[in-house]
Amino acid sequence: MVTLVDIARAAGTEGSVADAVRAGLDRVVERFEGQLNSRIAPVADLCAHVSTYRGKMLRPALVMVAGLAASARRGRPMQPITDELVTIGAVLEMVHVATLVHDDVLDHSDTRRGGATVNRLVGNESAVMLGDYLIARSFHLCSQLDDQSIALRVGQVTSQVCEGEVLQLSRRGDLDLSLDTYWTIIELKTAALIAGAAQLGAQAVNADPMVAGKMHDFGIALGKAFQVQDDLLDLTGDQAAVGKPVANDVGHGELTLPLIHHLSMLSPVDRERAEAVIQSGDRSKIVAMLNTTDSIGHAKREAERLVDEAIACLDVLEDSPAKAYLRALAGAVVNRDH
Amino acid sequence: MVTLVDIARAAGTEGSVADAVRAGLDRVVERFEGQLNSRIAPVADLCAHVSTYRGKMLRPALVMVAGLAASARRGRPMQPITDELVTIGAVLEMVHVATLVHDDVLDHSDTRRGGATVNRLVGNESAVMLGDYLIARSFHLCSQLDDQSIALRVGQVTSQVCEGEVLQLSRRGDLDLSLDTYWTIIELKTAALIAGAAQLGAQAVNADPMVAGKMHDFGIALGKAFQVQDDLLDLTGDQAAVGKPVANDVGHGELTLPLIHHLSMLSPVDRERAEAVIQSGDRSKIVAMLNTTDSIGHAKREAERLVDEAIACLDVLEDSPAKAYLRALAGAVVNRDH
Repeated sequence: MVTLVDIARAAGTEGSVADAVRAGLDRVVERFEGQLNSRIAPVADLCAHVSTYRGKMLRPALVMVAGLAASARRGRPMQPITDELVTIGAVLEMVHVATLVHDDVLDHSDTRRGGATVNRLVGNESAVMLGDYLIARSFHLCSQLDDQSIALRVGQVTSQVCEGEVLQLSRRGDLDLSLDTYWTIIELKTAALIAGAAQLGAQAVNADPMVAGKMHDFGIALGKAFQVQDDLLDLTGDQAAVGKPVANDVGHGELTLPLIHHLSMLSPVDRERAEAVIQSGDRSKIVAMLNTTDSIGHAKREAERLVDEAIACLDVLEDSPAKAYLRALAGAVVNRDH
Repeated sequence: MVTLVDIARAAGTEGSVADAVRAGLDRVVERFEGQLNSRIAPVADLCAHVSTYRGKMLRPALVMVAGLAASARRGRPMQPITDELVTIGAVLEMVHVATLVHDDVLDHSDTRRGGATVNRLVGNESAVMLGDYLIARSFHLCSQLDDQSIALRVGQVTSQVCEGEVLQLSRRGDLDLSLDTYWTIIELKTAALIAGAAQLGAQAVNADPMVAGKMHDFGIALGKAFQVQDDLLDLTGDQAAVGKPVANDVGHGELTLPLIHHLSMLSPVDRERAEAVIQSGDRSKIVAMLNTTDSIGHAKREAERLVDEAIACLDVLEDSPAKAYLRALAGAVVNRDH
């Protein structure tokens, strides 16, 4: 498991940035839990349960490191992590956890991070409502910030996540899904929120709009790489490490990059045979088939290319330990087993 | 069907307030549809479908009339309906429609206002995501207002709606549900949003906080009356008029006021028999049983008492056609068949 500390070590920034991020994430957790302190017992119980869903905390970490990196100036000591960065991190993590709760309803999943999902514990109905509660609480927290443009942006990226999910659902079972539509889906459902984290981190430290824009682009490329890696783990990962059921996408008729690549390489006759293998849902057979066209390798290289694209966006930043951390974070996205 | 025009007629305010509200609701519809103009085709299609869910538009009407009533001064012409009132109305209607979309998933409902529900059309998964999209778009719209305290309040009432739903779900099938818990559930799941509408309408015209507070109390009492009437229609209403399946609450093991009242009147032996009738889900048998203790009549009187309580809150307002309209609106809540 690649933790934030490992990432920081890889960046050779164990001292300053990693300590600041670790302390910042503690404050994020505190704000997260404080905001979900319902006086209605069944709601409070479920909120305590979903607290265990927080894992890598990629989004809040990104908000804070983007803030540190965008405010770094040669010869000036590292800036403190402001309350605003902590709040934005908690808001985005809450939106993310809400999408996990609803995703588990959509996927009929029983386990998440090794524990029971909310739908498993209390049924789909309460899981739907709990996700709504988390979204509402995230906006309520966001509305407490002085800069209203942040709430506007959070509303926008949250809409985009939903648009991506609806688009994906509308194409379930569609073996003709185009590469273009695939990229649109993952840009909306995954990359938009990660891009929002990087951009808002920069914006919250009053970075130049050009810099904030580049941080957005960094997040889009990183988010796409993250989703391609997730899709690869669904095909080739170890269920115990991943912490949720594997072969989930293919089981739901969702085409991911390796499958789209493979199908695009085939003659009509071979394609018919391949579609039958995909529809069987047999993971090892599917992977063996994908390897005949190096489609797993192709997806891995695409993820690496996207990471390089993300890292290139960082050129706009002054060199600093926080920038090195962002670079290491980007690399860690494709070198993870969960 | 009691339309807003009927209400206005009852209030004898056909000219001024009714025309202003009718024109205001057209602007609400325009803002509502403009905000849901997704470039993702399956999302746009579903948004067009849920536009048919808008019926009485009670919440936006309440925002506008509360604004008119709170700004009315003797001898001064009626104030125009501001853009801010229109936006708040569209925001709350969007939250309301989101809860309808998710409610239909919760209740496995097939029909709404005589048409198919979203879950019926495209499955539970897309219905969950569409509801999320509507919530996100409502907050995005809300964040465009100058006064950030409105977004804060919208976040709060939306959380309360979810808390009420989770609390209700956690007590499904519980025949020992207390009256206290029943009132807490309906205050959260229904009255909070209606109270938010009345309060924000007053707040948006810079009403004295005491006046805005009384408008909140008006909305709480009115919202509870509204829900008791909805619960009565579930037991005694005509399915064609109601526009959604009846005997829904009892089918889901949700105790409503007439049932709680009836059970509280019985000896332990009679209670056991009554519980069997409730669990049978046979609507006409249940209603016949409830009438032996005048429990339908009791619930009707409770709804009327709540309407009187709501109307008493209006004393704080100067007399005006808008105030008369609010009074008529309150009365119409318990005199409706859908």
